[in-house]
Amino acid sequence: MGEHADSPQQTDNTMIKMLIDCFGGDHSPEANVDGALAAMTNNPDLYLILTGDETTLQNYLKTKTYDASRLEIVHAPEVIGCEERPIDAIRLKKESSMIKAVRLLRDRDDISAMVSTGSTGALVAAALTRIGRVKGVIRPAFCPILPTMNGGIVGICDSGANVEVTPEHLRQFAIMSSLYMEKVYNIEKPRVALLNVGKEAEKGDEIRQKAHFLLSETPEIHFVGNMESRDLLSGNYDVVVCDGFSGNVLVKTTEGTALELLKKLKKDIYSRTIYKLGALLMKRMFMEEKEFMNYQNYGGSVMLGTSKTVVKGHGSSKAVAVEKCIEQAYKMEVCSLSAKMEEIIMRYEHYEY
Amino acid sequence: MGEHADSPQQTDNTMIKMLIDCFGGDHSPEANVDGALAAMTNNPDLYLILTGDETTLQNYLKTKTYDASRLEIVHAPEVIGCEERPIDAIRLKKESSMIKAVRLLRDRDDISAMVSTGSTGALVAAALTRIGRVKGVIRPAFCPILPTMNGGIVGICDSGANVEVTPEHLRQFAIMSSLYMEKVYNIEKPRVALLNVGKEAEKGDEIRQKAHFLLSETPEIHFVGNMESRDLLSGNYDVVVCDGFSGNVLVKTTEGTALELLKKLKKDIYSRTIYKLGALLMKRMFMEEKEFMNYQNYGGSVMLGTSKTVVKGHGSSKAVAVEKCIEQAYKMEVCSLSAKMEEIIMRYEHYEY
Repeated sequence: MGEHADSPQQTDNTMIKMLIDCFGGDHSPEANVDGALAAMTNNPDLYLILTGDETTLQNYLKTKTYDASRLEIVHAPEVIGCEERPIDAIRLKKESSMIKAVRLLRDRDDISAMVSTGSTGALVAAALTRIGRVKGVIRPAFCPILPTMNGGIVGICDSGANVEVTPEHLRQFAIMSSLYMEKVYNIEKPRVALLNVGKEAEKGDEIRQKAHFLLSETPEIHFVGNMESRDLLSGNYDVVVCDGFSGNVLVKTTEGTALELLKKLKKDIYSRTIYKLGALLMKRMFMEEKEFMNYQNYGGSVMLGTSKTVVKGHGSSKAVAVEKCIEQAYKMEVCSLSAKMEEIIMRYEHYEY
Repeated sequence: MGEHADSPQQTDNTMIKMLIDCFGGDHSPEANVDGALAAMTNNPDLYLILTGDETTLQNYLKTKTYDASRLEIVHAPEVIGCEERPIDAIRLKKESSMIKAVRLLRDRDDISAMVSTGSTGALVAAALTRIGRVKGVIRPAFCPILPTMNGGIVGICDSGANVEVTPEHLRQFAIMSSLYMEKVYNIEKPRVALLNVGKEAEKGDEIRQKAHFLLSETPEIHFVGNMESRDLLSGNYDVVVCDGFSGNVLVKTTEGTALELLKKLKKDIYSRTIYKLGALLMKRMFMEEKEFMNYQNYGGSVMLGTSKTVVKGHGSSKAVAVEKCIEQAYKMEVCSLSAKMEEIIMRYEHYEY
């Protein structure tokens, strides 16, 4: 078992060191710990620091087998609830598992990433205000992933970190998210679209019109033009660039509509015996649909443009989902995503529109 | 049969006179004409002016029975396609069934409304630029209706007429759409929400924060606070107020997700015999779901705040849907919606934030 001091030990530099916020999710801390241990088994160069109530974590770990030389606990007795105001949570809950992890991430050069399944609002706000930015990046952005109907995925950047943006912000979001889709999801030449109210270049407000122009003038990305929101799940786009307000609407409307429809379907099935019988024959299909719609199968949402990697798993994440989030952060480190972002973004540093 | 002159005859003032753009929809002109005749039968004080190719319309009408003293045709040989740029369409296609109707609506005091199933972009742009506003209204807004999962409906205002808004615009949208839901859909004390990225009053950009304050200070509406987009279909709200950009995203994402999901379900059912068998037992249910999701069952989208009533039916509208749109416009006239709007909005005319 590792050290349990407030400030964890400095270790071997060849290791990739990551913080796992073990509280705040629906299945915390068990899912977070189990996911962490699984990721450690898969990646021998992964060193994990768990934050959360020490006694609870230790008691749970006692029942497990793992390489104690690559795991430590940092005690953090508080938990941020999903209903708390992000700004209050950051300021008042300094001893929470999330904020303690953010602080360590900021202060310790040897730690490169953190994964959390806690409050999205608090994590995004903490990452924006506490963690530095990649050189040249004006505003980091939040980028979740949704499954498309042809079995692929689509990234949405930004989806809530910046409610107001400039055309230059949108270009940076495009560069960052395109690199992310390429390096982490192995999508060659990701098709980048701009969220707008119509296909034509002159659609939308001035910000959208200028962004359309800037994106067409950025050879490092494969810009395919404006996308109307009804085509998000079509599979024709790999990443959609937008301001955080409409990106938030885009992601939450998709999730909300899918959820409400499945709920209605279920209710209707239970309304008549013959439907229940039919559904029985289709049980496997419905389970597959549910699995398909289960956003935790597609990995977490990442902050792009922060100097350290921050991955947010769904609040309902189980162990497998947490493991995926850790693998995602691991991949971002291994492929040096931040360095590549910086290299391209710095080419446009003094760009005047 | 009525007159076929370019400028229709002036008739009895007790009649409600309405223009029906008979071209531009997927099932035009048959659906539009059939819907028009059905609405005429239901409402003896309805007088309709059909715009479109005269010969085509006359030939189709020959096969029908109707009160010719309440119907006339205005010849308009051109049709606006859905792919045409709205600005070009308005400027170049003056002889189209839609633009000719808009012009008559503007010029003729005895005509109070028009219904179209043609290009939404062209209709909204034409209404904004050619038709005057209700006194006190700064910007008219476009308000479609979606079905909620508990069998109700929800209005979304604005959903595309104004990509940029001020807090005062949003208050006017709230007043107008609340009145609309109350008078046309008989919803007592409609629950009005503000679309935002979180529930708390201080969420979102400055526009949203100020709008939240203004809406709370408007006793004529029943403001229930911010709504996150995932709750649109929950049935907890009767109308959602938003800027036209995010409103457009909200509506089109909902439609797109529902459509893509149903498409996927269908594809998956056809993938295995046992699923097809199960689906057979559930045939009636699936048909009901499809009907439930069919937006044309819920009436058209209306322009709120224009001095004359403009109703836009879905492009795929069949006769029943066209009839519903006409009934909607009829109801807006009968209950003097514009006058009521003006009365409330004028109370805030000199309001300084």
